[in-house]
Amino acid sequence: MLGVGLIGTGFMGKCHALAWNSVRAVFGDGPDISLVHLGEANENLAVERASEFGFRRASGDWREVINDPQVDVVSITTPNQFHPEMAIAALKAGKHVWCEKPMAPGFAEAEAMAAAAAQSGKVAALGYNYTQGPAIRHIRKLLDEKIIGEVNHLRIEMDEDFMADPDALFYWKHEATSGYGALDDFAVHPLSLLFTLFGRVSRVMCDMAKPYASRKTRDGTSRAVETYDSASVLMHMENGVAGTLQVNRSAWGRKGRIALQIFGSKGSILFDQERANEFQLYVTSDRPTEQGYRTILTAPHHEPYGRFIPAPGHGLGFNDLKIIECHELIKRIEGQAAHLIEFADGLEIERTVHAMARSFKDQRWVDVR
Amino acid sequence: MLGVGLIGTGFMGKCHALAWNSVRAVFGDGPDISLVHLGEANENLAVERASEFGFRRASGDWREVINDPQVDVVSITTPNQFHPEMAIAALKAGKHVWCEKPMAPGFAEAEAMAAAAAQSGKVAALGYNYTQGPAIRHIRKLLDEKIIGEVNHLRIEMDEDFMADPDALFYWKHEATSGYGALDDFAVHPLSLLFTLFGRVSRVMCDMAKPYASRKTRDGTSRAVETYDSASVLMHMENGVAGTLQVNRSAWGRKGRIALQIFGSKGSILFDQERANEFQLYVTSDRPTEQGYRTILTAPHHEPYGRFIPAPGHGLGFNDLKIIECHELIKRIEGQAAHLIEFADGLEIERTVHAMARSFKDQRWVDVR
Amino acid sequence: MLGVGLIGTGFMGKCHALAWNSVRAVFGDGPDISLVHLGEANENLAVERASEFGFRRASGDWREVINDPQVDVVSITTPNQFHPEMAIAALKAGKHVWCEKPMAPGFAEAEAMAAAAAQSGKVAALGYNYTQGPAIRHIRKLLDEKIIGEVNHLRIEMDEDFMADPDALFYWKHEATSGYGALDDFAVHPLSLLFTLFGRVSRVMCDMAKPYASRKTRDGTSRAVETYDSASVLMHMENGVAGTLQVNRSAWGRKGRIALQIFGSKGSILFDQERANEFQLYVTSDRPTEQGYRTILTAPHHEPYGRFIPAPGHGLGFNDLKIIECHELIKRIEGQAAHLIEFADGLEIERTVHAMARSFKDQRWVDVR
Amino acid sequence: MLGVGLIGTGFMGKCHALAWNSVRAVFGDGPDISLVHLGEANENLAVERASEFGFRRASGDWREVINDPQVDVVSITTPNQFHPEMAIAALKAGKHVWCEKPMAPGFAEAEAMAAAAAQSGKVAALGYNYTQGPAIRHIRKLLDEKIIGEVNHLRIEMDEDFMADPDALFYWKHEATSGYGALDDFAVHPLSLLFTLFGRVSRVMCDMAKPYASRKTRDGTSRAVETYDSASVLMHMENGVAGTLQVNRSAWGRKGRIALQIFGSKGSILFDQERANEFQLYVTSDRPTEQGYRTILTAPHHEPYGRFIPAPGHGLGFNDLKIIECHELIKRIEGQAAHLIEFADGLEIERTVHAMARSFKDQRWVDVR
Repeated sequence: MLGVGLIGTGFMGKCHALAWNSVRAVFGDGPDISLVHLGEANENLAVERASEFGFRRASGDWREVINDPQVDVVSITTPNQFHPEMAIAALKAGKHVWCEKPMAPGFAEAEAMAAAAAQSGKVAALGYNYTQGPAIRHIRKLLDEKIIGEVNHLRIEMDEDFMADPDALFYWKHEATSGYGALDDFAVHPLSLLFTLFGRVSRVMCDMAKPYASRKTRDGTSRAVETYDSASVLMHMENGVAGTLQVNRSAWGRKGRIALQIFGSKGSILFDQERANEFQLYVTSDRPTEQGYRTILTAPHHEPYGRFIPAPGHGLGFNDLKIIECHELIKRIEGQAAHLIEFADGLEIERTVHAMARSFKDQRWVDVR
Repeated sequence: MLGVGLIGTGFMGKCHALAWNSVRAVFGDGPDISLVHLGEANENLAVERASEFGFRRASGDWREVINDPQVDVVSITTPNQFHPEMAIAALKAGKHVWCEKPMAPGFAEAEAMAAAAAQSGKVAALGYNYTQGPAIRHIRKLLDEKIIGEVNHLRIEMDEDFMADPDALFYWKHEATSGYGALDDFAVHPLSLLFTLFGRVSRVMCDMAKPYASRKTRDGTSRAVETYDSASVLMHMENGVAGTLQVNRSAWGRKGRIALQIFGSKGSILFDQERANEFQLYVTSDRPTEQGYRTILTAPHHEPYGRFIPAPGHGLGFNDLKIIECHELIKRIEGQAAHLIEFADGLEIERTVHAMARSFKDQRWVDVR
Repeated sequence: MLGVGLIGTGFMGKCHALAWNSVRAVFGDGPDISLVHLGEANENLAVERASEFGFRRASGDWREVINDPQVDVVSITTPNQFHPEMAIAALKAGKHVWCEKPMAPGFAEAEAMAAAAAQSGKVAALGYNYTQGPAIRHIRKLLDEKIIGEVNHLRIEMDEDFMADPDALFYWKHEATSGYGALDDFAVHPLSLLFTLFGRVSRVMCDMAKPYASRKTRDGTSRAVETYDSASVLMHMENGVAGTLQVNRSAWGRKGRIALQIFGSKGSILFDQERANEFQLYVTSDRPTEQGYRTILTAPHHEPYGRFIPAPGHGLGFNDLKIIECHELIKRIEGQAAHLIEFADGLEIERTVHAMARSFKDQRWVDVR
Repeated sequence: MLGVGLIGTGFMGKCHALAWNSVRAVFGDGPDISLVHLGEANENLAVERASEFGFRRASGDWREVINDPQVDVVSITTPNQFHPEMAIAALKAGKHVWCEKPMAPGFAEAEAMAAAAAQSGKVAALGYNYTQGPAIRHIRKLLDEKIIGEVNHLRIEMDEDFMADPDALFYWKHEATSGYGALDDFAVHPLSLLFTLFGRVSRVMCDMAKPYASRKTRDGTSRAVETYDSASVLMHMENGVAGTLQVNRSAWGRKGRIALQIFGSKGSILFDQERANEFQLYVTSDRPTEQGYRTILTAPHHEPYGRFIPAPGHGLGFNDLKIIECHELIKRIEGQAAHLIEFADGLEIERTVHAMARSFKDQRWVDVR
């Protein structure tokens, strides 16, 4: 029996709740899951959501969740600035932690979280769900098999358009206090894929840009935008491979694009999260006259797709990724090997983000470590 | 509080269980859901699955499920030949029924089911989940708005390749007792979409074919295949529109293709279930020099996508369709308008399938009614 | 030295002229080409076009072209109804003939043309240029190699939207005297591909439809449309394969679509003329976890692409197909094997079209021969 | 009457010859074209090609071509290192010049060419044919119309795989004397598109990489590769827009990719040369629920497509681009406005390439001017 606590009931809170509700039915293994305690600043909302999400208890104080003796693991899905305090407290209370990404607004806080995790002896995992899709998991396997030989060039782009409207008003995400801009908002996602598939980044050279220098405010005046909606990065991986990483949150037409291009000595692989149920493979072992990118639809033989649907080409959704991640977390808690990004690796992702920002500020190449 | 019984624990049984587990968390409305009783011929398996799926009671006899006084609605997910007896018994026991498609191998049995449903006063719905996707729901809305004017031509294809291997052995699906072939296996799916989007089919002219005349058996001999892996149908809709319907279960490369082409006087719409999170729209109201098919990614403004994910382009999966269907069923049970295919309409779908088979047998156009 | 005459200076006349101008530079073989005589009903236009197209002589009377002693081969690119008289006269005058498709409005006339060709001992070829693309030529080679095993199912669609506007006025193509409709206009193109790739059609069952029952006339009244803008055909090939052929000239959004789906026992092949520089191949010899449609870009190793461009993926255009066809014609004139549809095969294509029309009239399956 | 000389008979020489042969038939305007004199180092080959390409005279000495009094314009299609001497001599001989890109291996030579062009008063144009496609021409028009508002972000990638095979032997393109690598080979193409669509580049930050550090030689030893197969560039345009440019000649699977992503305040535009007969447009003026990338097939209303084919969606080829360029050159010679990249602008393109190389060498941002 695994007792679950959940803090936060927004988008990701609901996503965690769905995962905890479905994981055992999907995978048919592991301990019984008991949804014990839901915390949410607004107590009335906490009670309402606990009923919808199937939690037994609700509380307006998150500390009650982490101190609930029946809670073994705590999902933390609140805004980033609350992660450090909550995660560290949960770990100190002897709970496993499943915290949404990124870890924290500042690097020092992320370091403190990683230190707390190391001291606790508990599992402390981050919610990098894009690394969990069957396509990505299979690409990892293909890379290990050297199906495209030695990788020599990488490109990754993450683009959305939620900030693309020039007439949208100035709000807190345009203030420097919220961070750098797209770099914080986004870059951790493509970096989680790079870490999963290729390892760490060693050097970066970053440029950032503002599509709109100022925005209107509610009172009818105008205010200078302080954050950068796009970042373009030249990078070298620790394994010697060079490539680029680009993020843009003002890219009209892009909704959930995370486009990966991987080139090797014997072929190449393409993936785009907007069509996450397929990936493309080009291999030079095909006869030259019939070489071309294969569009491969995910199927039961791409793990763990088959736990969801026994028929190929039927497709998993975004919420299913969190179910897979939840299952990996449970495996890890039970002492098995798991495919997860834990605090120690998450810290390296955030170190890389901050190195990119420093590179832009100093207008020069920066070593990540 | 709605008490749920589930009969069957295969692919679709699990899919129903996942839907019942998630529907309230996803939609945040409706009654509490109580997973009461799971039935499965193998009692040990029933107990095991009840634990995984979260049901309180398990039984090796489906009659115990339908007679459980705490059960209000019964999910029937067993093989087709068991549907009639189970569904009729459940309706007679005063339960609502949610039965997987198709209704029954023979038309007379399907008629009996529809009659039982009409007499019961209970809700009797079929599991045509492909009609529930946000893209299909939005296409229906666009057709009602006449965004492509008056529809004048239709084409629909459903293709998979699970029977495409000529070296696969003869098994029960190759015997005439299993039905006509792809026509029974498949045609109800595209017909459910046609019914949802355009209404009933009036006339059909059908051809069927066997890609492999015989197959090897386990004992090393060979046996003539009695069913048809493909069916191609010329058809006229009751609303006067002409078109074609094609199904093939031996189409190498196709995994879950349900490709729809809808042509109207002011534009056209394309959809393919293999990329179910998008659809294509061409409208003549765009300036001529920039007319082209728009690839539209599903998003929160395509209902009910937003109940799952607040961000566009992130994608729903096959299992999510069943959650939506479950929610429609609950709405219907609560007396609200719902987007469902109930037994009366399901009977018309099956009438159409049988008319297609008769057309092929008689080599002539056949009126469906 | 090969002397060329050209009759007609519209779309296809210009296309022939471009081919004759370029064929020797592209292929670097064959006889010198001499552009001798251009005929066009309007003599002034004839003179003007002769100058533009590089012909030495011009005439307002096509008979002068076919009787010009320096002319060895005559391109006939006039409207269909003029083909029989011109082609037969040219053949009788001892000239080779390259005539645009279809051969003639009526079958008897087409038969007369084929008979004249047979008697003449001259080359009489038809302008079925879609059969000449490197992708189609390579698909033919792959089918011969059995790369997808034995073909067992075919689908072909040809759709354009030039007649899709319901507000376009009634004109001669809406009168029954112009033929059946899309069937004449279009079906010969997909049939030329079927003939090239698979051989002849044996039986057909055809349905036709009118998207718009009537159209406005110039004088403000309305007139019933007599031709059918779409045709849908169930068919059996002489080699036993079943499939469908569909044509539609009122399909909004489709511009030059000729979409072919070929299913075999070991794979499948897809092609669409709107993206004629690529085709798709699925083969079961790929490892199961990486099976998928390969998008293969045409390249120098797909003959005769390399005669045009030495680099892969750079693309040929519609007019290039005519250059290839011209080269095949020259090879044939010089007594070599050539990839062409000559009058005898063209007659079979037209026989098939008329059988389709008869099937629709009689509402039954019709044997082509 | 315009007298044409051609120097070089390789890939691009043939391409020029085809253009000169077809331009008047395609466009139906301008002066008569007379193919006067073909020069090629190998005199026998010169005679042979002159016959194939339709030139009246042939010569083994290029100086005879430029000094031929009947030659008005000289196509220069020899390897880059010969461009400066030939182009300058032709201009001094009072001929117009049409020279393939890039201008010259070194910047000083390119400057000398531009100076010679300025002094001559003759037309001196470069063969940047990718800027001539109807899709690119129409995109330019749409940008001028501000259909996607103010452009704020650009990405361009050019990738091929002709150098991707690690087992291919060391040859002259791997020596530093051949230039920087992909940067010289390729970057001028995407830069020509950027210049055409957006103007000049102001600042660059470049990284380059070698996928294979050494290659085998013919004698069985191994030799260090001195050139870089990929280059990735952060850049700022003079108009303030930021973006990236990436080139790779060892990108397995890419054949003729030139992928452009243009983001603006009201939409975005995508283009890929591998599918040059289409482009994609996203505009926020579409209703939100139906916003999506439109795939727009080129058509007669996208100039000058209609001069080639009167039907939409039928497709132009690579060689057709050179015919369009040839027509622009003739217009320019006749004193009309033309869409061309002349030596002065070509010099700026090459200045940009050299600035990129300097940036990589110095590992810092470099101002182009």
